[in-house]
Amino acid sequence: MLPLKNLSIASIFSESQKAVDNLTHLALDRRVRLAVTGLSRSGKTAFITSLIHQLLHGLDGANLPFFSVVAENRFLGTKTMLQPNMEIPAFQYDQFVASLTGDKPEFPRATDGLSEIRLAIRFQPSSFISRQFAKTATLYLDIVDYPGEWLLDLPLLNLSFAEWSQQLMEFCKQEPRSALAAEWLEYLNGIDVNRSADEETMRTASQLFTSFLHECRAKNTGLSYLQPGRFIIPGDLKDAPILTFCPLAAGSNSPPKQSLYEVMEQRFESYKELVVKKFYYDHFSKFDRQIVLVDMQKALNHGAGSFSDMQGALQGILNSFSYGSSNLLARLFQPKIDKLLFVATKADHVAANQHPNLERLLNRMVVRPVNEAVFQGVEVKTLAISSVVCTQTVVRDHHGRRLSFVKGVPIGRSDEVMLFPGEIPESIPSLSDWEESRFNFLDFQPQTHASGGSIPHLRMDQAIEFLLGDKLL
Amino acid sequence: MLPLKNLSIASIFSESQKAVDNLTHLALDRRVRLAVTGLSRSGKTAFITSLIHQLLHGLDGANLPFFSVVAENRFLGTKTMLQPNMEIPAFQYDQFVASLTGDKPEFPRATDGLSEIRLAIRFQPSSFISRQFAKTATLYLDIVDYPGEWLLDLPLLNLSFAEWSQQLMEFCKQEPRSALAAEWLEYLNGIDVNRSADEETMRTASQLFTSFLHECRAKNTGLSYLQPGRFIIPGDLKDAPILTFCPLAAGSNSPPKQSLYEVMEQRFESYKELVVKKFYYDHFSKFDRQIVLVDMQKALNHGAGSFSDMQGALQGILNSFSYGSSNLLARLFQPKIDKLLFVATKADHVAANQHPNLERLLNRMVVRPVNEAVFQGVEVKTLAISSVVCTQTVVRDHHGRRLSFVKGVPIGRSDEVMLFPGEIPESIPSLSDWEESRFNFLDFQPQTHASGGSIPHLRMDQAIEFLLGDKLL
Repeated sequence: MLPLKNLSIASIFSESQKAVDNLTHLALDRRVRLAVTGLSRSGKTAFITSLIHQLLHGLDGANLPFFSVVAENRFLGTKTMLQPNMEIPAFQYDQFVASLTGDKPEFPRATDGLSEIRLAIRFQPSSFISRQFAKTATLYLDIVDYPGEWLLDLPLLNLSFAEWSQQLMEFCKQEPRSALAAEWLEYLNGIDVNRSADEETMRTASQLFTSFLHECRAKNTGLSYLQPGRFIIPGDLKDAPILTFCPLAAGSNSPPKQSLYEVMEQRFESYKELVVKKFYYDHFSKFDRQIVLVDMQKALNHGAGSFSDMQGALQGILNSFSYGSSNLLARLFQPKIDKLLFVATKADHVAANQHPNLERLLNRMVVRPVNEAVFQGVEVKTLAISSVVCTQTVVRDHHGRRLSFVKGVPIGRSDEVMLFPGEIPESIPSLSDWEESRFNFLDFQPQTHASGGSIPHLRMDQAIEFLLGDKLL
Repeated sequence: MLPLKNLSIASIFSESQKAVDNLTHLALDRRVRLAVTGLSRSGKTAFITSLIHQLLHGLDGANLPFFSVVAENRFLGTKTMLQPNMEIPAFQYDQFVASLTGDKPEFPRATDGLSEIRLAIRFQPSSFISRQFAKTATLYLDIVDYPGEWLLDLPLLNLSFAEWSQQLMEFCKQEPRSALAAEWLEYLNGIDVNRSADEETMRTASQLFTSFLHECRAKNTGLSYLQPGRFIIPGDLKDAPILTFCPLAAGSNSPPKQSLYEVMEQRFESYKELVVKKFYYDHFSKFDRQIVLVDMQKALNHGAGSFSDMQGALQGILNSFSYGSSNLLARLFQPKIDKLLFVATKADHVAANQHPNLERLLNRMVVRPVNEAVFQGVEVKTLAISSVVCTQTVVRDHHGRRLSFVKGVPIGRSDEVMLFPGEIPESIPSLSDWEESRFNFLDFQPQTHASGGSIPHLRMDQAIEFLLGDKLL
């Protein structure tokens, strides 16, 4: 509101015209840029495919009771649009949905790098005022898929090369990193970091470090907190100097000009400047909402080290969203993101009675700071969902106890099994829990379902409502 | 020179100081950015590897009589330097030379995309004046390796979408393109280009067109003039809208808004803007000298269509260097390139007495315009060389005639053979030459050579002298 003394007929008119414009805009044309990323092979491609599928089939049989625009019969349909950005690869929805809904359904192969797709959702505005301007409105939804590692690069902006090196060397003192890092660290031990830099030594050191990162990420290790992200998915930067460095323990003196230490430090700084900041300027700063997918069962399966690593990664991500005045990112620019959703995927891989614990455990891992005010305007939520339901929960008597079993076809097998996958702890497991190695959750294959019907899911509608509900009023 | 009236003691001093600075700079520190590209699997990686190897071994046994700095005993040695550009991948010389000079020598695998390496060549200046400032000087040589297709994108800048489409459709009326394009063109026939654009149709059309380009480039077809270059090596742009178009025959009327034709036309224009111009601004405009490698024998083997296609490609490249006032590129910026070398590689795959014809034939293919003045300041040369000699020429009597045979191990075989590979025509073959299918040249494997010795070559020293000689005076 303008101060009274500045009011004139012209300014009053201009102000009310602005209000009308805003409303018209509100009613006619809205845009949301929704970013989806995931940690540790969390089923990102399946999630996005199911999300698009549910929106496309919102009128004909999708089961979306919590998606209010559908529940209130204001949903008019969704269609895919032309790709919005010339240089961003298309998310290959057609291919992915074909592999999920074919005669022999399979999870689509994991995507690499960045991709996006644009949808247009037509709906009837709910409010009286909006409806004065238009009977129908459109929400343009851009879904952007990018690797979780790129989000985990964000904390690098707050670290010097020495600080980052020290942090990573500390991580490497503990298993499972300790064993995996042995070869790389042994090579570093044989090097004087103050000697004159040469490409061959730097290449060998960075190749060993990159192999270490790949092993950390491998299926049988399943670590999440991996930096720098571009080392794992290099794209066109493969073998470039900007990816040819690694953490180094500082030498005793300040490093001489053109020494290994100094040159690697320069490359680390260039990485921050040309890779990390570029991603944040070109992409991250334009996102409206962010989803982070997590495979909790996999983290539990892999044991204490992997689990606490995932917790560290989630915490690192959350810190990037706390816009305190000391946050480097906040000083660089103000991200637009106002909703942040953490999702535990593959909820159907445990019995239905375990879902509340899955959500509680994820909630405990995403420990928010005591002072919630640091998340100025960012709404944070956790949900346990299933993008594509692969199993049924069956309750049976077992040696006199009522137990909830899961029935489905585990990946890599051909026959259906009924098994008791165990219980999800509702809080962070204690050391003794791990020693008993009580977690052994399996992955299941998608099932064929009635043609024409939509992909069965769990709570996708709650996720959609949280992310889009307020934009469809 | 300043006009006389402006002269003062201070300005005279400043001018002569400038002259001294220029001379010092001349004597102490020079830079050359040498771009290497090739058509149709011409042995680019082997050429660059041998080039670096000869320079590194210029002091110990490399056979470089025509490289004047070596012949005049002014050469002091070469070493590899740190990579000059953070975001350009390193040319992996160590790996490539290891595969060429190992116990079982093999040609290094072809590289994809862009890479570079920096060498420092130490030498004694030859001129009296230079030597007053320094006894030794250094030439910093950046060798940049990039795909020939990127150079062939240059002519696109002078074409509209309609012109380019028409040109390509004309090409596709002739074999071998005609048969390879059949599936793609049949799909286009079923499409109304004036209908509303959708991603699925555009993706299918551009995938069929991309497959067509790959088949044109395949070993058994061996075409060279392939556009747009990024369709073949997409890198991070794979599946992006900017690579999701293809040539289209225009509809009867002017295309409606958002029609297939209009959207593909926009994408073609974006390709020119964001891919082609970007390459020229970021890279091409910074090159000092350019080498284009050609495998003449392969073009001859593949017959009339492939041969005239290569001639078209060479002509297209040459036109990019004719800086007439009508040239779009000349208006955009003035490239620095002052020497352009066309090289027929694998000269050793034919007998020594055929080398002059190889050079003459290449010379005939690179037909310069009558008025050489359009190449303002660009010196153009052709040479027949061998980066890595794989054979020996042996003269034998054969049914009473003295014939020159080639002795070596053809690729894919294990035993040495002696064969008469036939003659290279000294002018463009006539139609009857092709009908007799008289060209059947083979590729040979590199041989083990005495350890410590340098890689055997033919006329690499002449190539090096042309490209660098004047910078080492």
